[in-house]
Amino acid sequence: MGARLLELPRRKERMEEHENLTLEGRNAVREGLRAGMRIDRVFLQDNLHDPALSEIEKEARKAGIRTDRVPKEKLSKLSRTGHHQGVVAELLGWEYCEVEDILLEAKKSGEKPFLFLLDGIEDPHNLGAVIRTAHLSGAHGVIIPKNRSASLNATVARTSAGAVNYTKVARVTNLSKTIDELKEKGLWFVSADMDGTLMYDLDLTGPVGLVIGAEGKGVSRLVKEKCDLTAAIPMKGKIDSLNASVAAGVLAYEVVRQRMGK
Amino acid sequence: MGARLLELPRRKERMEEHENLTLEGRNAVREGLRAGMRIDRVFLQDNLHDPALSEIEKEARKAGIRTDRVPKEKLSKLSRTGHHQGVVAELLGWEYCEVEDILLEAKKSGEKPFLFLLDGIEDPHNLGAVIRTAHLSGAHGVIIPKNRSASLNATVARTSAGAVNYTKVARVTNLSKTIDELKEKGLWFVSADMDGTLMYDLDLTGPVGLVIGAEGKGVSRLVKEKCDLTAAIPMKGKIDSLNASVAAGVLAYEVVRQRMGK
Repeated sequence: MGARLLELPRRKERMEEHENLTLEGRNAVREGLRAGMRIDRVFLQDNLHDPALSEIEKEARKAGIRTDRVPKEKLSKLSRTGHHQGVVAELLGWEYCEVEDILLEAKKSGEKPFLFLLDGIEDPHNLGAVIRTAHLSGAHGVIIPKNRSASLNATVARTSAGAVNYTKVARVTNLSKTIDELKEKGLWFVSADMDGTLMYDLDLTGPVGLVIGAEGKGVSRLVKEKCDLTAAIPMKGKIDSLNASVAAGVLAYEVVRQRMGK
Repeated sequence: MGARLLELPRRKERMEEHENLTLEGRNAVREGLRAGMRIDRVFLQDNLHDPALSEIEKEARKAGIRTDRVPKEKLSKLSRTGHHQGVVAELLGWEYCEVEDILLEAKKSGEKPFLFLLDGIEDPHNLGAVIRTAHLSGAHGVIIPKNRSASLNATVARTSAGAVNYTKVARVTNLSKTIDELKEKGLWFVSADMDGTLMYDLDLTGPVGLVIGAEGKGVSRLVKEKCDLTAAIPMKGKIDSLNASVAAGVLAYEVVRQRMGK
């Protein structure tokens, strides 16, 4: 198993995203601590001796996170919303896992591996929604490429409704190579495409990776050629395709249905 | 059948949305004309005598739309993107239909009515994605309330990938009253909620209205009480619910699957 990789945002990203890398207010910080979010420091207002704040302070210290009591003016500067209620937490970047961690997650659950592989989803809202769907449909993780893809950031975290804190996300250099490696471990890959077999007619109960393509472009040719099956979602109407995160949801729940034997 | 209602945006909306109410560039304007978008005027560059522009000019006139040849400077002023390629179309607001038009659409198709009723979806991206899903899954229309809902605008149109031009959307004052009226016409209403019956165990092959609640809040109590059935999408994990448009997609395709006899 490789070492976990701390994702250091590139310079430009860091500057753009910086203002989003905070949690503000008692609930947000408390939830962030409980969810094990990668919090760097917690700042608390120095002249507020409120039990709720002390509780947060205690929880943070227990988690090994540095806490600082600071004047209200400092909190106001750190705050984007102006509603910090005496507490602001600064976050580190998000953490990616290794592909092996996703397989381990499946093994721990006693289920056949079920994962998503996203081929060039560049819209962070779509990435967040897919991670949310992956978590709720019981998938064991999500694989994204290093290039031509949104990466984990505050927008993704928000759109995922926090699922990013519970879902394994691996980032790989070469999707085709990853597919080859996982096929050797028994996974089948299914790409979503209109010209495929009706999804209801495929057996999706085995160890499966669902391959979702980019908005507009679909799954790239190289990746598609690596897939074992092509699943079609039946579509009527005069436009081309479902939103990528909706397509991912519909396919994911076809896997869920088949696995439940319904 | 009531008269079709032209939706005049309120003053504030009009100002905010104004800069979005244009189509720019040859492809966009051509597609807009073909899709029957509500175009008010088409502006073309006066010193460009290009066959593609003349074609657009002809098509617009055939559709009864006023066209004007104007200097390049005027187009640049109208343009947001700077890539107008000699043509900019100004749009009117979007048009709502009556609920009866949705039933008529079902009748014309020879299918049992299948529609969405959105209870307080305020995010225009979600509204757009649901309209896109409704169109592709073969639903006959979407009903939204006048209050506490996103209304049709440029963001919705863009997120719907153009489906807003092909999908009937009705706007009503009172969702509960509309449900009552449609129940008298034989429709069954199914709300999505975690505490319901597993969706696979419900019969969704009849005339059906799927009720999707707002992000976070779910379906409101009054509307839920009017529904005949509550459908649960099976969910694992540590967060509450799917994105509203993903939930709508998953439920819609359960209807599709059952209607296909799969």
